[in-house]
Amino acid sequence: MNAPTLTERLAASVEAAAHLAHASLDERAALLRSLAQGLELESENLIAIAAAETALGIERLRGELARTAFQLRFFADIVSDGAFLQATVDHADPAWPPAPRPDLRSVRQPFGPVLVFAGGNFPFAFSVLGGDTASALAAGCPVLVKAHPGHPRLSIAVARTAREVARQAGFPAGVLDLVHDEAEGRAALQHPAIKAAAFTGSLRGGRALYDLACARPGPIPFYGELGSLNPVFVTPRAARSRAQEIAAGFRASFTQGVGQFCTKPGLLVVPREMDLDVFAHGLSDTPPAPMLTDRIAEVFTTRVDELLDAPGLSVLVHGKSDGARSAAPTLLATTVSDALSLPEVLLTEAFGPSSLIATYRDEQEALALARGIEGQLTATVFAAQDDDPVAARLIPALAERAGRVIVGGWPTGVAVTWAMQHGGPYPASTADGSTSVGARAIDRFLRTVAYQSVPDALLPAALREANPLGIARRVDGIAEGSTS
Amino acid sequence: MNAPTLTERLAASVEAAAHLAHASLDERAALLRSLAQGLELESENLIAIAAAETALGIERLRGELARTAFQLRFFADIVSDGAFLQATVDHADPAWPPAPRPDLRSVRQPFGPVLVFAGGNFPFAFSVLGGDTASALAAGCPVLVKAHPGHPRLSIAVARTAREVARQAGFPAGVLDLVHDEAEGRAALQHPAIKAAAFTGSLRGGRALYDLACARPGPIPFYGELGSLNPVFVTPRAARSRAQEIAAGFRASFTQGVGQFCTKPGLLVVPREMDLDVFAHGLSDTPPAPMLTDRIAEVFTTRVDELLDAPGLSVLVHGKSDGARSAAPTLLATTVSDALSLPEVLLTEAFGPSSLIATYRDEQEALALARGIEGQLTATVFAAQDDDPVAARLIPALAERAGRVIVGGWPTGVAVTWAMQHGGPYPASTADGSTSVGARAIDRFLRTVAYQSVPDALLPAALREANPLGIARRVDGIAEGSTS
Repeated sequence: MNAPTLTERLAASVEAAAHLAHASLDERAALLRSLAQGLELESENLIAIAAAETALGIERLRGELARTAFQLRFFADIVSDGAFLQATVDHADPAWPPAPRPDLRSVRQPFGPVLVFAGGNFPFAFSVLGGDTASALAAGCPVLVKAHPGHPRLSIAVARTAREVARQAGFPAGVLDLVHDEAEGRAALQHPAIKAAAFTGSLRGGRALYDLACARPGPIPFYGELGSLNPVFVTPRAARSRAQEIAAGFRASFTQGVGQFCTKPGLLVVPREMDLDVFAHGLSDTPPAPMLTDRIAEVFTTRVDELLDAPGLSVLVHGKSDGARSAAPTLLATTVSDALSLPEVLLTEAFGPSSLIATYRDEQEALALARGIEGQLTATVFAAQDDDPVAARLIPALAERAGRVIVGGWPTGVAVTWAMQHGGPYPASTADGSTSVGARAIDRFLRTVAYQSVPDALLPAALREANPLGIARRVDGIAEGSTS
Repeated sequence: MNAPTLTERLAASVEAAAHLAHASLDERAALLRSLAQGLELESENLIAIAAAETALGIERLRGELARTAFQLRFFADIVSDGAFLQATVDHADPAWPPAPRPDLRSVRQPFGPVLVFAGGNFPFAFSVLGGDTASALAAGCPVLVKAHPGHPRLSIAVARTAREVARQAGFPAGVLDLVHDEAEGRAALQHPAIKAAAFTGSLRGGRALYDLACARPGPIPFYGELGSLNPVFVTPRAARSRAQEIAAGFRASFTQGVGQFCTKPGLLVVPREMDLDVFAHGLSDTPPAPMLTDRIAEVFTTRVDELLDAPGLSVLVHGKSDGARSAAPTLLATTVSDALSLPEVLLTEAFGPSSLIATYRDEQEALALARGIEGQLTATVFAAQDDDPVAARLIPALAERAGRVIVGGWPTGVAVTWAMQHGGPYPASTADGSTSVGARAIDRFLRTVAYQSVPDALLPAALREANPLGIARRVDGIAEGSTS
């Protein structure tokens, strides 16, 4: 039997979209919970494949799979809750200004099939059943995944598990499908059946796909998470009181997972009085470790060489590869004024175990950097435990540039919660205001439809007068809580 | 004194953005209420200018100004309410899976300066102080308006009123500014100071601007409301029981305001048994009336000529112009199958007093049209008062294609309420899921920022532990109501 063509796959996605849109919230939540369980039941097998393909290590992968299963259940809870539908009821009002208002009700409905470009650095959490897929399914949208070339066998295994789970739950297998070929991914992105796309990866690759999505005869939203420098600012008071602690945390954060996090701290901004050796301490003893793919290691080496060629740069540690795919930590230093004079080289992401320390003369220079950097996923401040006037000025400046502002922690952990924001102004993402992690990720795949004077029996259940779903709604402007 | 350059104007917008972002919710709401009052105090003068420029008639303009003032106050209420901030608090939780969660809080913050391309057909409600401006200011974003060439003097007068009101309320005049030149509008759209854009107008013009917004080095959201055919379906039962009533409503709706509504019913879909003369009744007696501009009248005439050249089309009424700027009602008829075979001519908007009746053979053909049309702002069904199985099948199909689905009414009224959706899949809008009318219009100009482990005193007021603003928040996943 021949493999189905892209057109056949997308026809199955469209059919699955109708099925998902008509399923009840409980059925949709049950599907997400079954997918979580399916991952867990297959975990040993899946983790073994992932370890062989990505070199990320069993412990890390075990934690990531647990997080991925948790994320699916988290979205199941959000679906059951129903508040994400933003059901809104405005009864007819003959006294409404400037003209009588008819009965108007609105609810959010799924966009339809979503194309997810999987990331390479989280083979579970940002891949086939990762956050983009979980939030799209929660919204009621089937997903076509473009697999990451770094873990093709794992992608196939996870997709097979997911399709089998969906089938057993009574959903058509088209709720989730997989393509591997780059050209097929681009063709899907331009196909009218696809109604939205999500992407985790490089600025260059993401921008090219964003441009394709916008150039379609009927453009679609493209939610690209493109990476970030994730600057960390150390105030003078923190530098005086907490240098050792900050240095140890910094080393662990930028080298964790061979530096392959979109939230890796790629820039540490410290007062020039600081002794920089404390940051380099022990780093040169870290042995080279394999990166996700040969290609990623090659791009990293080229990027580090570009940094090393920059004028006025000091080399604190220069880690060498011991083979085509490996990398060891590199730590460089410059001044804030030099960094600001060459931002396209010094103030852009290097994906891998490197970071740059930029020293500032005074508070004004630190603030100038905070205001001068491009959009970021995260920005961090290390401050004194008590009042710290520099932190008080940095935080609002950084909130204009970053999706998440952190005090006294490291950006590399991204908790799945209601408040999490994983996004930021371009080039951190192509859609600032949306998030790819956390409860609001579901918002990306929903459109609102208003129903005017539609008889109760013909309304979606969420909007019927008796509120049969028992969900939270806004009625005539007043928020009403859920009754379930 | 020379007029300020675009760069100087945008520098003033950026300064005003900082002011607006730091103003309290009450101050922002007060500004919106003062703008409403300013419009009302100047109403006689403004309406006289509008009538001279647009030929829309005093009564209509009076109602539109009242609606515009109401809309500003409606957004003031939304600002005071505070729920639009979506303040979310997740306390630290050491037991959170798969790893302890830090304290995470998120709130929506304004994007920054917004560029609004004013519409021509609503010189108050979709122009200088119209819905886009009101919702952007409510979000805390200053606005640069690109004036519509159809009412330049009115635009200047409204902007002058608005800037004086802002000044008296203690805001910098940069909260609202105006440009007239097309090239200046395009330059502003490409300027890094502009963080989002909203547009009401034609598909062709809107798409060109959308493409510019996407092609920026740092792309921005472009909320284009590009128009619509607004199909109206009459079921066989409704055709038998309510033909006269439907025909009278249809004639009034498609000729109202010389057909210059983005919600004008441009397509009426009826069973082929229906006598079409009932729709044309009296139409040929309607005298020509002036359109908004010479250019709009010229485009309309060309568009009607294109329709008249289509094969298989019957002419029920062909209204003639009596001068460069006027138009009279034109009503044409065809079959659904002919319409579907030439959609680019027959199933696209004609902006002006024309409409097309398409007759269907059977329910399947009516459904095929509902599923075959492009994205629409509205879609309407006229059904029998009791159970109507055709309506039950049409409504969900139309909800996939339109932002608003109406039963038994006409689409030309767009009430400003919480549930209103004025948008739809492309080409109705460039951002399906967003609305340019109603409470959720504010969502278009807000980005979310998460704060991780930030000390209480350094958090935005909306996120402090004691909830000093008394607004509705989601705390550890549970919705909490407002306390004010």
